[in-house]
Amino acid sequence: MPVLESDAAPCCPPLTERPLTAEEAERAAAMFKALGDPVRLRLFSLVASHAGGEACVCDISDVGVSQPTVSHHLKKLKEAGLLTSERRGTWVYYRVEPSVLAAMGRILAPARP
Amino acid sequence: MPVLESDAAPCCPPLTERPLTAEEAERAAAMFKALGDPVRLRLFSLVASHAGGEACVCDISDVGVSQPTVSHHLKKLKEAGLLTSERRGTWVYYRVEPSVLAAMGRILAPARP
Repeated sequence: MPVLESDAAPCCPPLTERPLTAEEAERAAAMFKALGDPVRLRLFSLVASHAGGEACVCDISDVGVSQPTVSHHLKKLKEAGLLTSERRGTWVYYRVEPSVLAAMGRILAPARP
Repeated sequence: MPVLESDAAPCCPPLTERPLTAEEAERAAAMFKALGDPVRLRLFSLVASHAGGEACVCDISDVGVSQPTVSHHLKKLKEAGLLTSERRGTWVYYRVEPSVLAAMGRILAPARP
């Protein structure tokens, strides 16, 4: 039986290659939208650039917003498939999904000469 | 005298390199937000993938929304620095700003091994 792709699975050709279908645009826009908020983008960059590619929520609260707001944004990033999380002991650790980052970068790849 | 960078100028290191500053996050999030709407993303891909990297508004109206909605989204993409436009005769032509596309792709570049 084929393994179904999750919603977070890489999607969509480079924007310069051909027009996206409505379905592709829905999926890709959801990922871009998740990065379309300054605080959320900073939190994402804090996780993405943290040693080992993962960060505890205790490492990433220094962006000038309350802890509930941090949690809200991390939840949005998880829902968009950009972060995964794992509870270990007291803390929840967040990790960037490298395949999703690669897929988004591919969508933005410039036109071939 | 130095030439000032426009708001659309390339910005920000890869998210995996270091946390973005608040100012960097503001600029980058605005670009991602512009692509965070499915219709807007489809319109952008229509322009980006069109022959010669530019498209007349007459070429890109086939996304199932009204012409005023198309115009609204194209305006948003221009404000975000993702498209430039030029009137030639009857029509306005839109072109993708390649440096901006490259900058967004760079922000999403995966971590170096």
